[in-house]
Amino acid sequence: MTSTTSTRVDSASPVETAALRRAFELARRGPAMDANPRVGCVLLTPDGTTIGEGWHRGAGTPHAEVAALADAAALGNDTRGATAVVTLEPCNHTGRTGPCSEALIAARVRRVVVSVEDPNPLAAGGAARLRAEGIDVLAGVLVDEGRQVLGTWVHAVERDRPFVTLKLASTLDGRIAAADGSSRWITGEVARQHAHDLRAEVDAIAVGTGTALADDPSLTARTADGSLHGHQPLRVVVGLRDLPADAALRGPGGDLVQVRSHDPHEVLAELGRRGVRHVLVEGGPTLAAAFLRAGLVDEVHAYLAPVLLGAGRPAVDDLGITSIDGALRLVTRSVVPLGPDVLVVATPAAIPEASPEASPEAQES
Amino acid sequence: MTSTTSTRVDSASPVETAALRRAFELARRGPAMDANPRVGCVLLTPDGTTIGEGWHRGAGTPHAEVAALADAAALGNDTRGATAVVTLEPCNHTGRTGPCSEALIAARVRRVVVSVEDPNPLAAGGAARLRAEGIDVLAGVLVDEGRQVLGTWVHAVERDRPFVTLKLASTLDGRIAAADGSSRWITGEVARQHAHDLRAEVDAIAVGTGTALADDPSLTARTADGSLHGHQPLRVVVGLRDLPADAALRGPGGDLVQVRSHDPHEVLAELGRRGVRHVLVEGGPTLAAAFLRAGLVDEVHAYLAPVLLGAGRPAVDDLGITSIDGALRLVTRSVVPLGPDVLVVATPAAIPEASPEASPEAQES
Repeated sequence: MTSTTSTRVDSASPVETAALRRAFELARRGPAMDANPRVGCVLLTPDGTTIGEGWHRGAGTPHAEVAALADAAALGNDTRGATAVVTLEPCNHTGRTGPCSEALIAARVRRVVVSVEDPNPLAAGGAARLRAEGIDVLAGVLVDEGRQVLGTWVHAVERDRPFVTLKLASTLDGRIAAADGSSRWITGEVARQHAHDLRAEVDAIAVGTGTALADDPSLTARTADGSLHGHQPLRVVVGLRDLPADAALRGPGGDLVQVRSHDPHEVLAELGRRGVRHVLVEGGPTLAAAFLRAGLVDEVHAYLAPVLLGAGRPAVDDLGITSIDGALRLVTRSVVPLGPDVLVVATPAAIPEASPEASPEAQES
Repeated sequence: MTSTTSTRVDSASPVETAALRRAFELARRGPAMDANPRVGCVLLTPDGTTIGEGWHRGAGTPHAEVAALADAAALGNDTRGATAVVTLEPCNHTGRTGPCSEALIAARVRRVVVSVEDPNPLAAGGAARLRAEGIDVLAGVLVDEGRQVLGTWVHAVERDRPFVTLKLASTLDGRIAAADGSSRWITGEVARQHAHDLRAEVDAIAVGTGTALADDPSLTARTADGSLHGHQPLRVVVGLRDLPADAALRGPGGDLVQVRSHDPHEVLAELGRRGVRHVLVEGGPTLAAAFLRAGLVDEVHAYLAPVLLGAGRPAVDDLGITSIDGALRLVTRSVVPLGPDVLVVATPAAIPEASPEASPEAQES
């Protein structure tokens, strides 16, 4: 690269990069589970002074850019000529709130620095709209960290379906229950609490009717003291058979919905219509195999207990794989000892997952 | 505990404890694989000065105590009144060398500090013999570390059979091969090299005839560059069927022995007669199940790869366990990420294994 003394407008300045990191912090203050993404925004004067900050607090409330402009106005700061640093491309559509692109144009900002471009076709076009007004737009800065902040939302929007985590909890020899169907408990307390905490982070939990009828699970998210978490995921039963009137799934917890289909695509379409961004598929082996065969698993959480059974229900039913060449190979993302057990988190090779440490930054002059 | 100014002879002094740690170091210089245990010895004057050191260099060479006495003599040091600090109770029998108890008596030592009491009924009795001569003997100092230095030798002698490590290498859903029997490769390079290094540390590797005939393994221990390790374990095939003349097991590597039995007790008795202290049971599921059912597995090494198969050969065949209450529950000793794979080392609950950091020390005044 050649050295130049001219002003570079195609890369983020160190001040802008720092402001973007601050915007990530602000974004993380938003609700983890919401139909809308978590977004943060920082407004800078041309000399790099912060004059306003905002973040999105959930569906129906102002978007981050509008919140930051309101913050600047409340502080008596002039936004003309400012740079807006924002974690997601400003939207260009009128939903429950007006387009952020128009708000930034009206505030007469001169430059907009964006991390992640909006994958949502309904809301995209903000950058083009801003550029049409002569505003300088730089997108793709710290994009791996930006995607990490957006979490499963970005995967869900890109695929137009919920993000799917498949949970397996098995013995070292791959059994989820003994021959008589008994399975309480294979994993220990630490792993079970970890699984409950994961439930509290997803929008929905799905099981097949086989598991629902055999195990009578409640599928609630519980804290260590046994009480219900503040957030309870939607409880989803997949299959044709009816649940008994006294099923634990009808007890306290999240709403219950039965999807009377065996097709995982239909299940996800139905959940998508209900605003689900992240579903945890908890079992049994039939449902796990159906999602795996359909290529609809984005992440596997395998809890493995130091137990051997030698027989019993396998974690995953037949996948139609007959030779090792056809094996479903995953990429290990983390290995987490949990008391006596271990959690292996793995994803299909195609899905990149960034760590903030390793995220490549936009070129800096 | 009450404070006392009188001399305590029933506990190790700090100098003796330090000398014992030195003796552990010396012991570790001995051969890892040998019919005899690794033992170290340090000789101290009553004021705590080291006057001789020795360790056992392998079967047929002097025992550690005799080596230390020879070292002291070579240095011109007088052993009369000395304290012998030794990692294993001095032997009291005449094998290829004379009894160490007699050598210490002849050297007129006054005190002997011992870590592990000899579990070998043929060699035990050294402490009693020394005490009968009026020599003060303190045993059981840093015993967990002492047992660790002795490794599988102490387990093998206590049980009068080889120590058994069961190796499983499977997918996350517990499969060791696809439905067509293909299994190369489930685990990755790092895990496979780890498994080869383990082979180089054991005396024997056992597989069933089913595995031998289906996979035609060579069961050699290889280094990262593919060449043979200096030590090659005995290769053991268990079962009645004959191996073909061109079996890889007949190629370069350790000696080959076939045990024509399905009874793990008979297999271990035969290996014990051949001087095997540590056998690695590598498969397949039938042999694994036979050893597990017989209660003859001392340690499980489960290599788990981020792969799903959904069908195929299970890691372990039927164990006769029908309910979760009968599950074979192990204690996790370590979780080791190996590239994309993970190794879980677990033992039956009954076998304690000490880490040097956590070893309780003998009471010190």
